[in-house]
Amino acid sequence: MGYNALLKRMGEVNDLLCAESMLSWDARTMMPPGGADTRAMQLATLKVFARNHLVADESRRLLDAAEAETANLAADSVERTMCAHVREAIDYHLRIPAELVHRRAEVGSKGQHVWAKARAENDYAAFAPVLEETLALNREMAECIGYEEHPYDALMYRFEPGETIASLQPLFAALREGLLPLVKAIGEKEAPRVDFLQRPFPVEKQLAFALNMARKVGYDTDRGRLDLTVHPFEISFTRNDVRITTRVNDDWMPKSLFGTLHEAGHGMYEQYCDPAYTRTPLATDLVGLYAVGGVSFGAHESQSRLFENQVGRSREFWELNYGELHDAFPEQLAGIDAETFWRAINRVAPGFIRVESDELTYDFHIMLRVDIEAALIDGSLGVADLPEAWNAKVKEYLGLDVPSNRLGVLQDVHWSSGQVGTFCNYTIGNVMAGQLFAEAKKDIGVRDGLASADYRPLREWMTEHVHRHGRRYTREQLLERATGRGLEPGPYVEHLTAKYTAIYGL
Amino acid sequence: MGYNALLKRMGEVNDLLCAESMLSWDARTMMPPGGADTRAMQLATLKVFARNHLVADESRRLLDAAEAETANLAADSVERTMCAHVREAIDYHLRIPAELVHRRAEVGSKGQHVWAKARAENDYAAFAPVLEETLALNREMAECIGYEEHPYDALMYRFEPGETIASLQPLFAALREGLLPLVKAIGEKEAPRVDFLQRPFPVEKQLAFALNMARKVGYDTDRGRLDLTVHPFEISFTRNDVRITTRVNDDWMPKSLFGTLHEAGHGMYEQYCDPAYTRTPLATDLVGLYAVGGVSFGAHESQSRLFENQVGRSREFWELNYGELHDAFPEQLAGIDAETFWRAINRVAPGFIRVESDELTYDFHIMLRVDIEAALIDGSLGVADLPEAWNAKVKEYLGLDVPSNRLGVLQDVHWSSGQVGTFCNYTIGNVMAGQLFAEAKKDIGVRDGLASADYRPLREWMTEHVHRHGRRYTREQLLERATGRGLEPGPYVEHLTAKYTAIYGL
Repeated sequence: MGYNALLKRMGEVNDLLCAESMLSWDARTMMPPGGADTRAMQLATLKVFARNHLVADESRRLLDAAEAETANLAADSVERTMCAHVREAIDYHLRIPAELVHRRAEVGSKGQHVWAKARAENDYAAFAPVLEETLALNREMAECIGYEEHPYDALMYRFEPGETIASLQPLFAALREGLLPLVKAIGEKEAPRVDFLQRPFPVEKQLAFALNMARKVGYDTDRGRLDLTVHPFEISFTRNDVRITTRVNDDWMPKSLFGTLHEAGHGMYEQYCDPAYTRTPLATDLVGLYAVGGVSFGAHESQSRLFENQVGRSREFWELNYGELHDAFPEQLAGIDAETFWRAINRVAPGFIRVESDELTYDFHIMLRVDIEAALIDGSLGVADLPEAWNAKVKEYLGLDVPSNRLGVLQDVHWSSGQVGTFCNYTIGNVMAGQLFAEAKKDIGVRDGLASADYRPLREWMTEHVHRHGRRYTREQLLERATGRGLEPGPYVEHLTAKYTAIYGL
Repeated sequence: MGYNALLKRMGEVNDLLCAESMLSWDARTMMPPGGADTRAMQLATLKVFARNHLVADESRRLLDAAEAETANLAADSVERTMCAHVREAIDYHLRIPAELVHRRAEVGSKGQHVWAKARAENDYAAFAPVLEETLALNREMAECIGYEEHPYDALMYRFEPGETIASLQPLFAALREGLLPLVKAIGEKEAPRVDFLQRPFPVEKQLAFALNMARKVGYDTDRGRLDLTVHPFEISFTRNDVRITTRVNDDWMPKSLFGTLHEAGHGMYEQYCDPAYTRTPLATDLVGLYAVGGVSFGAHESQSRLFENQVGRSREFWELNYGELHDAFPEQLAGIDAETFWRAINRVAPGFIRVESDELTYDFHIMLRVDIEAALIDGSLGVADLPEAWNAKVKEYLGLDVPSNRLGVLQDVHWSSGQVGTFCNYTIGNVMAGQLFAEAKKDIGVRDGLASADYRPLREWMTEHVHRHGRRYTREQLLERATGRGLEPGPYVEHLTAKYTAIYGL
């Protein structure tokens, strides 16, 4: 009875978090402007209720009973994994004083206003005090959470459990070694033409085509929908309702198309989780207090990057699907063939802004942020010296001189909202996507499917090896079960090398 | 400190109820079909959390402290009224065992499926057992809630506090006496032409025009929005976000136009509540557990009916606004003048279906339901004899022979979902609307506004006398403060008599 009662209670926590996500989705897609202030209070209340319901004496009593009841099962059984997740999350939350959570929320709320103004006015000095505060709070958080080597490890734990600054070093080194020569070589080549991507593409048609492609790769619109928003995201309220959003740019058509494939990749991770895990700790991030099933932010990003880049930006995909795109936009794409389109969407152009960067240079934006965040947290880099350090890294990695802090250190929202430690997920996602796609393609059914625009075998392979497990295995266990190895950058570097060699004739 | 702490806690109850309303709005407007089952669990969890947070020991402790702290204030002060609402709601909920609430929810959930099938198949016998169960549960509820004269009084309490079967009798008698002769007289006259209302009116244009009219009478779209749904409704998440929905019929244009004005009337009641009451017990129905500010369902209906019927179906309104309608639909309304349009939208046509009935015959649908519900609850009418009793009342009031239970006793969803006691609100709303509009028109500013298509003075009069007070006064106090008298049908009967005399030449 203890175990079932614990699951019932954790189901309520999931309900509260789903409701919070619903309020958040609405705030970002549908809410009239007047609703912002009271909505913020509703969001905060639900988060607090979810946290309190999780850590309450009654939960701990039920957990003790559930652990006793399941003690004879295998350590890696579903039941004991569920209990372990609850134990881990309760321990985590009890280590962080409610007062600190509250202070963090306040600084985050204030910080975003200060940052938005500072960015608009290119005024780093106005943002610096908020950043000092944010860093101090995060150092305090890190001490509460605990770590072995570096306080930054504690901050990454919420997003990428098990990852450390130390474990990232060989990964980053391999990426630099594998990718910097590509960036340099491409810089000396002529860029493919992209002018036709900047013609006016009607919004409704763009949305319809993007949603059609998302469906084609497996996103289920009976359990999802696509809406417009300013900052695209994926969000779910159990596997039965998983929504994606996109932004349509008038003058850069790939934005919404690949953005939609990206979010659809995230969405499928949630949609194809084992239905038996619905509302359980295997489909709830009880540490981060989000109603999501992916095992880490990096693992989640692997699915979005896989469908956006490995599939969506491949030559094979457009050889098979370009006709449909051309039919939808015959005027805009007049005289453009599949090969030209494919080259255009893979143009490499080192730039200042992370969210606008191409597949090849993206990871350098991540690496510089992780290095800088870790140095800010351990105090080896001071807030006053940050712009200089940032700009030096951009020069080193991308060969660019940052003309203003607006295009540099002030570009991301993360620090202003109090978040430190989440950037590594993007690169881990890219690397995982490379590994998983390479492995999936060893399956003849997957290969045949890709060669005939039937993406079901690929989606089913991902469901079998990734989606369905929810939070059942750690990220490394998941990778080892799927590919026989832990995280390794080889297949990702090979993928990029092969693609850009073909496009740029390296 | 007790009072402020109590308000903080009740603010959290409001947050939870707003979140529940958000989930409900989404389920009825945006949710993909797959989401239904887990959404139902999320809704149930939030309702239970709101109820438990309200009745928890901690709330009662804070309430005791708040009452002690405010004991020296006037009995009708805002502070003591807040406390009284919380006390009343806690007492109410503690009288109803959680087990009964749970059973009721289960029967309601099952009942709606049984009813939908029974209605589709015109099979009253299939629905009768569910109705028996619903009635038994409601009798049990009535005994828990308590009453002086009739168990039905206890069931009306949640919707129309203070109203009783006894107090409704003179009201209903006056309406029958005043309105039945009109129905009879109109039956002998030629009906106005309505053919042009059944032409195809494009959906988007209908929505745009309806929303424009809603704005014109005062609905604030910075704090609201209009969406499509199957069963139109108004819903709010504090006064800052008050949404309305409508349904567009291809073959009956007035449906969405007057439906939108109706819901906008509800919406303004919420939008113009005193901002100081936001998230407090004066803007939360703690008894019914809904995040709404109106003092009773009838009072709420007074605002929807006032803007739909007293304003929206008046000759003056169309003398001033018909040009705009004609501009929007020049082909559909070719050759139709304002007077002809006004007659058409006021056509009286006794029919079987409540939700499709006209302004004059609507109340007869209500009166027959209230009489029948009360008789079912006290056992003087048995479930087996219900169709016969229903059909006899329809014959008596509307002169019609009901051809099937589908068009008779099976038409409403209410009983299948477990709700008994809510129908009287509609007629009370009509009567109140008549009183309030007659009183408002004594104000020269309001009259001048109505005569120049400036509805701001009217809206402000309603805000001053109704909207801003939220749940500060009882319905009768509100009416007495606004009009000098309690509920009385005179002005409403006069309004209908004058209008139909003009249209039908009685």
